[in-house]
Amino acid sequence: MAVTGVMRPGHVALRVMEIEPAVKHYVEVVGLYETGRDDQGRVYLKAWDEHDAYSLVLIEADAPGMDHYAFKVLDTATMNDYAEKITAWGLTVERMPAGELHRTGERIRFVVPTGHHIELYAEKEQVGNGLPQVNPDVSPDDLHGMHPTRMDHCLVWGRDVDGSRRFFEEVLGFQTTEQIMTEEGENGELIGCFLTCSNKPHDIAFIKAEGDNWFHHISFNLESWEEIRNAADIISKRSLPIEYGPGRHGLTRGMTIYFFDPSGNRNEVFHGGYIAYPDMPILTWTAERADKGIFYYGQKMIESFMTAHT
Amino acid sequence: MAVTGVMRPGHVALRVMEIEPAVKHYVEVVGLYETGRDDQGRVYLKAWDEHDAYSLVLIEADAPGMDHYAFKVLDTATMNDYAEKITAWGLTVERMPAGELHRTGERIRFVVPTGHHIELYAEKEQVGNGLPQVNPDVSPDDLHGMHPTRMDHCLVWGRDVDGSRRFFEEVLGFQTTEQIMTEEGENGELIGCFLTCSNKPHDIAFIKAEGDNWFHHISFNLESWEEIRNAADIISKRSLPIEYGPGRHGLTRGMTIYFFDPSGNRNEVFHGGYIAYPDMPILTWTAERADKGIFYYGQKMIESFMTAHT
Amino acid sequence: MAVTGVMRPGHVALRVMEIEPAVKHYVEVVGLYETGRDDQGRVYLKAWDEHDAYSLVLIEADAPGMDHYAFKVLDTATMNDYAEKITAWGLTVERMPAGELHRTGERIRFVVPTGHHIELYAEKEQVGNGLPQVNPDVSPDDLHGMHPTRMDHCLVWGRDVDGSRRFFEEVLGFQTTEQIMTEEGENGELIGCFLTCSNKPHDIAFIKAEGDNWFHHISFNLESWEEIRNAADIISKRSLPIEYGPGRHGLTRGMTIYFFDPSGNRNEVFHGGYIAYPDMPILTWTAERADKGIFYYGQKMIESFMTAHT
Amino acid sequence: MAVTGVMRPGHVALRVMEIEPAVKHYVEVVGLYETGRDDQGRVYLKAWDEHDAYSLVLIEADAPGMDHYAFKVLDTATMNDYAEKITAWGLTVERMPAGELHRTGERIRFVVPTGHHIELYAEKEQVGNGLPQVNPDVSPDDLHGMHPTRMDHCLVWGRDVDGSRRFFEEVLGFQTTEQIMTEEGENGELIGCFLTCSNKPHDIAFIKAEGDNWFHHISFNLESWEEIRNAADIISKRSLPIEYGPGRHGLTRGMTIYFFDPSGNRNEVFHGGYIAYPDMPILTWTAERADKGIFYYGQKMIESFMTAHT
Repeated sequence: MAVTGVMRPGHVALRVMEIEPAVKHYVEVVGLYETGRDDQGRVYLKAWDEHDAYSLVLIEADAPGMDHYAFKVLDTATMNDYAEKITAWGLTVERMPAGELHRTGERIRFVVPTGHHIELYAEKEQVGNGLPQVNPDVSPDDLHGMHPTRMDHCLVWGRDVDGSRRFFEEVLGFQTTEQIMTEEGENGELIGCFLTCSNKPHDIAFIKAEGDNWFHHISFNLESWEEIRNAADIISKRSLPIEYGPGRHGLTRGMTIYFFDPSGNRNEVFHGGYIAYPDMPILTWTAERADKGIFYYGQKMIESFMTAHT
Repeated sequence: MAVTGVMRPGHVALRVMEIEPAVKHYVEVVGLYETGRDDQGRVYLKAWDEHDAYSLVLIEADAPGMDHYAFKVLDTATMNDYAEKITAWGLTVERMPAGELHRTGERIRFVVPTGHHIELYAEKEQVGNGLPQVNPDVSPDDLHGMHPTRMDHCLVWGRDVDGSRRFFEEVLGFQTTEQIMTEEGENGELIGCFLTCSNKPHDIAFIKAEGDNWFHHISFNLESWEEIRNAADIISKRSLPIEYGPGRHGLTRGMTIYFFDPSGNRNEVFHGGYIAYPDMPILTWTAERADKGIFYYGQKMIESFMTAHT
Repeated sequence: MAVTGVMRPGHVALRVMEIEPAVKHYVEVVGLYETGRDDQGRVYLKAWDEHDAYSLVLIEADAPGMDHYAFKVLDTATMNDYAEKITAWGLTVERMPAGELHRTGERIRFVVPTGHHIELYAEKEQVGNGLPQVNPDVSPDDLHGMHPTRMDHCLVWGRDVDGSRRFFEEVLGFQTTEQIMTEEGENGELIGCFLTCSNKPHDIAFIKAEGDNWFHHISFNLESWEEIRNAADIISKRSLPIEYGPGRHGLTRGMTIYFFDPSGNRNEVFHGGYIAYPDMPILTWTAERADKGIFYYGQKMIESFMTAHT
Repeated sequence: MAVTGVMRPGHVALRVMEIEPAVKHYVEVVGLYETGRDDQGRVYLKAWDEHDAYSLVLIEADAPGMDHYAFKVLDTATMNDYAEKITAWGLTVERMPAGELHRTGERIRFVVPTGHHIELYAEKEQVGNGLPQVNPDVSPDDLHGMHPTRMDHCLVWGRDVDGSRRFFEEVLGFQTTEQIMTEEGENGELIGCFLTCSNKPHDIAFIKAEGDNWFHHISFNLESWEEIRNAADIISKRSLPIEYGPGRHGLTRGMTIYFFDPSGNRNEVFHGGYIAYPDMPILTWTAERADKGIFYYGQKMIESFMTAHT
């Protein structure tokens, strides 16, 4: 396919209560690399196999949660084209000047129906993945922590999941891969949906909740089930709690661990899942088997997972 | 991205010397499922996680090799649009009527500069992946052989690699992810290129050779390095030769085994590799380190790999 | 070492409420092979890589639990020598005639201080592991279920753990590899101990409880963490509950899943752990970190695990 | 079994041409830890999960090869008892005083029929495995290189394989697990044998050759097939040659890579294999299928493997 529009998740800006323990967590436990700080004290980090300058921004704040989730689009013309379509769809578009975020071009910012701040941008400085572009090895030598290759996706909670889904499908060209419905068939109401802008099983997911702009988790991609085990070893050596996992989702088939950063923002490490194509049928999970969809190993709900958010 | 154009590799039609041993190989060794035969005696097979009716067609013939490699495009309008562009680019487009291949709509067929017969089609009957669309499990129970999830890509040989690359980039919207050059820099001449129509590291690859329309290998996707080991066990229980592997490529970073079907068509099972985005730099391999690029484990050329083709 | 004395766990005889669902569970879910039935209706099963005729006996009964746990000793002279030593140690030795269990020679039977019926025997018919003894492959072709290679160990509960430990060490020549103590140092009292008659981290384990002759779990060995994942997939496809796992123990370092047979007997599948030698220091777990010792991933106690037994 | 006699491989003393490149290889590539040097310039190394002070001694010399292979026995009385039996069997026993090797008690030394210098000792200082003995984690944090857990075994070549086998069986109490014979049946002559003093598939192996005291390889144990892949990545990042692998043996079923230290001493990393018990049938490989026994993946002989030794 000629790639157009939104390419991929670009970065997440997360609020944390204290910056240094957060940096320590995302570097030493998760295994990201710090690539810069700005004069507002924001810290920029990336996973090893990402070429762009960062995929996570940590912002010290009074409360944890997601400041915004940004997607990289093909080019500036595409971004400007989206700005028009978004406005036409009825959302207010704010322009963030180039340089407002470190090494990043102009961004457009808007609030989707579930209350989340979503951004699009076309330009971010490329710093490379630590490997040469000629005759490269398969990985750098100095990997640490859980060795994530990329920031993979976020799952967020809000009231109007149907609205955000329609926005991402109709305006941004995302595709729904899976959905959770109250029941099968025509009377079913949407509880959750998983959307992709690529061949991944999801790049963003929404779950219905009683509030807006709630953040559920940020997920980092690992390269094997053995790396999931390694991640569990790392968490356990620090006696950090694991909310779920090593486990597996029915939804996306991904293998997973859920844990938390020091501010209570939920983290996931994730491996696997199918390849999504536009002609794949949408998979449906009914509310009564959401336990199987979310916690395929064990198949019972975990209370904190259904309630805790930032 | 709003998906447009070519979605994915749809099927490969392979010539085999005797149909039954070939079917036995692709079913029992590789692990595909036979999904039908037609009145010409052609046999249709699929990997378990493909939704379409088939991804491999076996055709009894006097000599092995690739009859054609077909890609599925988004819809019929897209196919017709491509027909015009292909004609405009200077190739002759032949129309194959719906039903000429079992359960398949109309196809367009043309010969690319390296002499290979490439096809596009928009319609193929979906038979599903053996799992329900509501509350599915992560895999069917009855997997056999090497458990490939999909036919992944082909590598083919021909004289005018540069021409086929330009065709796939300019007309079909593919992106080059990696290339092999005689040397680094401006004097380098193209020896090979790896092209994707998706986020996979490659969907088709071309290597320069002294003849045209040569077939090098068809590759099937496995889900882990452990599945690569299982594939090696299966091959070894039958005392079949392995040309290379279990090993790894520098190119694409994929883990691999090369072996052969009873007619001498080269097979690969493949796992891993990065996720390709349009803004990823093209990786270059120089001829002198092609050994590292192709056979990362071992880093020496294998004579048969450089010469044997069908 | 010249091997003498007790060679290995030979078999476990388990009571189940209904024989056919139990057989179905151990064959289809766990992946054992049924190798015979006797005129009392007892069913004999083995794991694929065991050479002896069986390692599990299922006995229909009114209540679940362990009938007895039998170890194979080097030869009949060794068994008779043990009979004398056991009597000298103060236990009553009962002789079970050859043939009382299918394909099995004479056994000696006695009750250890925690109330469990332990047996020793020297002769059991060898049926092989499905592979030839000349130029064998690495595994048979027809593996099913979780592919366990052997019955690995049992963990049992009783009051006088210290007594059973002394018996296994002093009389049967076992070695303690790890122990759980109320506290570190001289005031610590024994809560649990893990004993080996080989280089495995444990062949039997005892945990202190408020009753005697309680059975906690029988464990089957798997060959990799990937096989642990496969086991979790199998359990989950049947929507069976998982008590813990895929997870890991601090104790023995083994990777694990706990689940149940239809009668409520707890099963484990287990992979990994160190190699135990006689000069390895005994590892100690304090009661306050027993959570880390047992549930290394998660590090919190699971109520049912501490209470449910058969 | 009450462990008696020989416990395990204790250490290998290897001759290397230049000490520093050898140390660098065994530390940075293989992943051992340097634990000391003595006033003769010998360097002592260990794998992380070994408790004793070292398992490899590097000795600078004019030619590579094995100086000696030492086994640890249960205690000094056992060593002295062996000294008598060895003398009675007809070999000359030399006593090496305590302290001759760093942190090591008295050793006895003798030459077995294949010309190799074998040693036994009972005392070596324990330095631990980097983990506490109370509430330990599953591994230290600072593992590097290939993360071997232990030096596992050596394979050596000599003329009188039958003699060395009888010595290890009759005097040292080892058990033959597998053998290579010229042909099946009574006329078969011994070409190679694999001997264990534990439950491992082998602790030493002998192959018939045209010279004596030849060294074929030293093997280090890895914990998974994924660790075998990691080892291959490490070798390949340095563009070091791989003689075979990632592959698998039919013999022992072990997964393997063969490569070389800078002096040409062959190294192996090894994972897997069955658990050996005394009543396991001896497995036989016929000369015509030695290719399958040694190189299960590929099943063809590798010339250098059959000829190169140090």
